[in-house]
Amino acid sequence: MSEHQPTLEAVAAHAGVSRATVSRVVNGTPGVREELRERVRRSVAALGYVPNSAARSLVTRRTGAVGVVIAEPESRVFADPFFAQQLRGIGRELAAHDMQLLLMLVERPGDDDRIGRYLAGGHVDGVLMFSLHTDDTLPDLARSSGLPTVYGGRPGWQAAGTGPAPLYVDTDNRDGARQAVEHLLARGRRRIAVITGPLDQTAAQDRLAGCLDALGRTEADPALLAHGDFTARGGEAAMSRLLESAPDLDAVAAANDLMATGALRTLRRHGRRVPEDVAVTGYDDLEPAAWAEPALTTVRQDVQLMGRLMAQLLLRQLTPTPASPDTDTRPPAPIVTPAELVVRASS
Amino acid sequence: MSEHQPTLEAVAAHAGVSRATVSRVVNGTPGVREELRERVRRSVAALGYVPNSAARSLVTRRTGAVGVVIAEPESRVFADPFFAQQLRGIGRELAAHDMQLLLMLVERPGDDDRIGRYLAGGHVDGVLMFSLHTDDTLPDLARSSGLPTVYGGRPGWQAAGTGPAPLYVDTDNRDGARQAVEHLLARGRRRIAVITGPLDQTAAQDRLAGCLDALGRTEADPALLAHGDFTARGGEAAMSRLLESAPDLDAVAAANDLMATGALRTLRRHGRRVPEDVAVTGYDDLEPAAWAEPALTTVRQDVQLMGRLMAQLLLRQLTPTPASPDTDTRPPAPIVTPAELVVRASS
Repeated sequence: MSEHQPTLEAVAAHAGVSRATVSRVVNGTPGVREELRERVRRSVAALGYVPNSAARSLVTRRTGAVGVVIAEPESRVFADPFFAQQLRGIGRELAAHDMQLLLMLVERPGDDDRIGRYLAGGHVDGVLMFSLHTDDTLPDLARSSGLPTVYGGRPGWQAAGTGPAPLYVDTDNRDGARQAVEHLLARGRRRIAVITGPLDQTAAQDRLAGCLDALGRTEADPALLAHGDFTARGGEAAMSRLLESAPDLDAVAAANDLMATGALRTLRRHGRRVPEDVAVTGYDDLEPAAWAEPALTTVRQDVQLMGRLMAQLLLRQLTPTPASPDTDTRPPAPIVTPAELVVRASS
Repeated sequence: MSEHQPTLEAVAAHAGVSRATVSRVVNGTPGVREELRERVRRSVAALGYVPNSAARSLVTRRTGAVGVVIAEPESRVFADPFFAQQLRGIGRELAAHDMQLLLMLVERPGDDDRIGRYLAGGHVDGVLMFSLHTDDTLPDLARSSGLPTVYGGRPGWQAAGTGPAPLYVDTDNRDGARQAVEHLLARGRRRIAVITGPLDQTAAQDRLAGCLDALGRTEADPALLAHGDFTARGGEAAMSRLLESAPDLDAVAAANDLMATGALRTLRRHGRRVPEDVAVTGYDDLEPAAWAEPALTTVRQDVQLMGRLMAQLLLRQLTPTPASPDTDTRPPAPIVTPAELVVRASS
């Protein structure tokens, strides 16, 4: 098709201006007189010239870029090493395929629409989205853009059963949390409290479910349950509430490492020894777990690998493998990586 | 011009397919039979149809997005709160003008070219670049893209004097560093060592120059100079070298807060008391300065404001103010914000 497209040179000849002038006008670069500008615009319209990205995109239908949308504000993204690790995995995989990573964060609810417009605008070949909340409109926007999309973490709407099943990469959150609480039970702990993540995220829902599995309960004891927000400060506050509602608790399973470090601070302030008086577990096994005093027993998920797998799953949709006897013709499917308990000094 | 563009409907009618099919084909969405796909492509070519972003871009010459390029790997960007603060300022200003921020990091030298291609591809309206190093090819790529560009930090090639002067937002690094060392002198310190940042960055060059200004020297005493890389670990190593080369030092001026916290760790390990034996100053006044033990004397630059000013300077070029008697017709110029010494326990 490209041979039917009028060239920049043809526009320049038609308008009687230099190639550079046409380039400046179609790229919106300032510094061209309005009269020349108008002449170039008329030639562009007369010849049906399609500038730069769109021209290439019509030929290859590729921009060479992937939008990575994290449904969290910058204050969360920069405070939790989870995101840096995930991005490292994604970035390496994309770079190995010469694809550009474009990071977009969601500071306010209204940002969804603007991101959706950009995604629908033909500027990216695919989308990776993670840390979604149940009320995010981003998945709808990704769907209506028609772009191949892979989610980080099991999307919450899967149960609804409309449309094709979303592709995602997750870790076995339920099993990981179950392992942590079973470990606390094996250490003889009997009053085990749980600090949850934000329950509008499936990772937090699944980790709570795993704790309840191990405790053999369908619902948590309200005195032994506190809600957090995956931040260290949220963990501090949740631990304070638990010491009020259940002063006799002897263990706490936090739904991530940052909240566990916050819980450690609160326990220290209240003179409770860890692990002698209260055992503490986290989830993630990122830097805060190893740095904590005492070092945290936690559940390891390979976050960087999960990022790489997300990018691979997307790239597979962008570059269909040529059919051959060896080709794996099964459609791409969600990937769930295993979770592994790491026992350290805090339990 | 938009009224001359064939519509999606016209393409659908020409090809004898549904509007949705045309949309799927031009957006590269999978799931359309190759025969239909080919028919749509022929109609697109015959009518000169320009899809989505390019169509809008021909009308408004706008994508609604700004590329923010940080010439640092993700490990640096996520470890130093400087970047999060800068991005917060930029993000807020862009969001207030309904512009989408696209963050691009440079993991490897080869990434420059890919970023350059994306910028030149018509996917963004302007570029903000920061943390440049003298050998970065990014500024050349930004210039050849023809996009309005604003730099964070004084670009190093300004002295070359070719082309229009670059627009940038910086802080008065030289004055700030001078204030820190003058403060150390005023406290009676006489053997003042300097830990520099990477000297391929103008911020590091300017801060070193400011230290020398205060010391009344044109060159540093080699025994009292150590090079760092703006990381905490680099500060730790530089402090170890200084204790070898100048065991009698009584003060250290580090070129940023992270390196100063590293220096504090090394001094503690060597049993040197801060500030009794050795006074320490940092630069930035971000979270690590206030958290440090003892809290750091440092030089405050308003990083978030600098981000906002960068975005404002760029937006001013994207949206020329209509001429009126009140219009400020002066061309946009670089902005240098003041630096302010903040005295805390470490000096």
